[in-house]
Amino acid sequence: MKLYDCQIAPNPRRVRIFLAEKAVEIERVELNIAEGDNLKPDFLAINPRGLLPTLVLDDGTALDEVVAISRYIEETHPEPPLMGTSTRERAFIESRNRHMEIDGFMSVAEIFRNTHPSFRERGLPGVSAVPAIPQLVERGRAGIARFFERLNSYYLGQRPFVAGDQFSIADITALSVVDFAKWVEEKVPSNHVNTLRWYEAVSQRPSATA
Amino acid sequence: MKLYDCQIAPNPRRVRIFLAEKAVEIERVELNIAEGDNLKPDFLAINPRGLLPTLVLDDGTALDEVVAISRYIEETHPEPPLMGTSTRERAFIESRNRHMEIDGFMSVAEIFRNTHPSFRERGLPGVSAVPAIPQLVERGRAGIARFFERLNSYYLGQRPFVAGDQFSIADITALSVVDFAKWVEEKVPSNHVNTLRWYEAVSQRPSATA
Repeated sequence: MKLYDCQIAPNPRRVRIFLAEKAVEIERVELNIAEGDNLKPDFLAINPRGLLPTLVLDDGTALDEVVAISRYIEETHPEPPLMGTSTRERAFIESRNRHMEIDGFMSVAEIFRNTHPSFRERGLPGVSAVPAIPQLVERGRAGIARFFERLNSYYLGQRPFVAGDQFSIADITALSVVDFAKWVEEKVPSNHVNTLRWYEAVSQRPSATA
Repeated sequence: MKLYDCQIAPNPRRVRIFLAEKAVEIERVELNIAEGDNLKPDFLAINPRGLLPTLVLDDGTALDEVVAISRYIEETHPEPPLMGTSTRERAFIESRNRHMEIDGFMSVAEIFRNTHPSFRERGLPGVSAVPAIPQLVERGRAGIARFFERLNSYYLGQRPFVAGDQFSIADITALSVVDFAKWVEEKVPSNHVNTLRWYEAVSQRPSATA
């Protein structure tokens, strides 16, 4: 197996944290998204969508999408479980993880891709010649504010972790959202005590440095 | 169990097709997204994100997100398998299904939500007061053209179905993309013979009328 990775990028980091929680080591190939390494012919021959992270299995199968890669690792290295241990829990964690992606991660990505000069013609991941749209910045800022509010009052208001009593992939995604948000100067408000308590705890796990 | 559904909407249809393939019947509650039933207090008390479909389990757990609901059904009703039967296959189908969602479904949704008068202040699902952004229409039209090209030449160019030799959840998502695209006058080009062959086959399955 080989993981096509990018040290600075938030989506590859989600897989690195997942691997670190499982104590799994995989050979890595570093590409630089900011310099467009992922859109060059060599990598497009491996993954025509040009997205990182991409996990290439020993039989040559290329898996992209963080959750698909994570599921492969979860099934081949079940301990500790990060995607649930019962039917109900697996579905619930999957639902919550998608909330973190769609409401959180995508809001920050909207801000980032439509403001950063390197992405002026890369408004969508893995595609060139998609012009930035300035109005998406405002929409993204409203989105991340809504997300932070719901993270504090709803998801983390009653339970210690995003999907219940155990650390899961949904916490990894949420942690990556909070840290990615700093790139665009969006911070957890200082009165969001539930989120700040959770953030301190998950940031102190050794996997957070991955 | 109770499924909060909307007969006209493409995401709830994905779950209905999934259920029909499994021959599973679930009690349904019909809400009208176009009239904003999903943003009214009664439904927000069940799902604060205001999204359909939502599956409420007998213990009161509310699951939203099509794939989370589908996974619950897949595990409780394994036959016929629609999400893979081996570790590699489950991860691969998940990766492919996300391609259909992100590259296909989201492109069409960008066009639809930013042109349809009922969604003038509903640029994102489940949230009011998000103004439409006209430039997203052009971005969505370029996106669906790219998606159709890749669907025909890459995904369906070598194998009969989107994720290989068997019908799977990725075909359900792709079918819903092609049908949703008609709403915004985007059609599979007439020279896309692989896609048209596949579309005819999947549309003739009894589940397609769900």
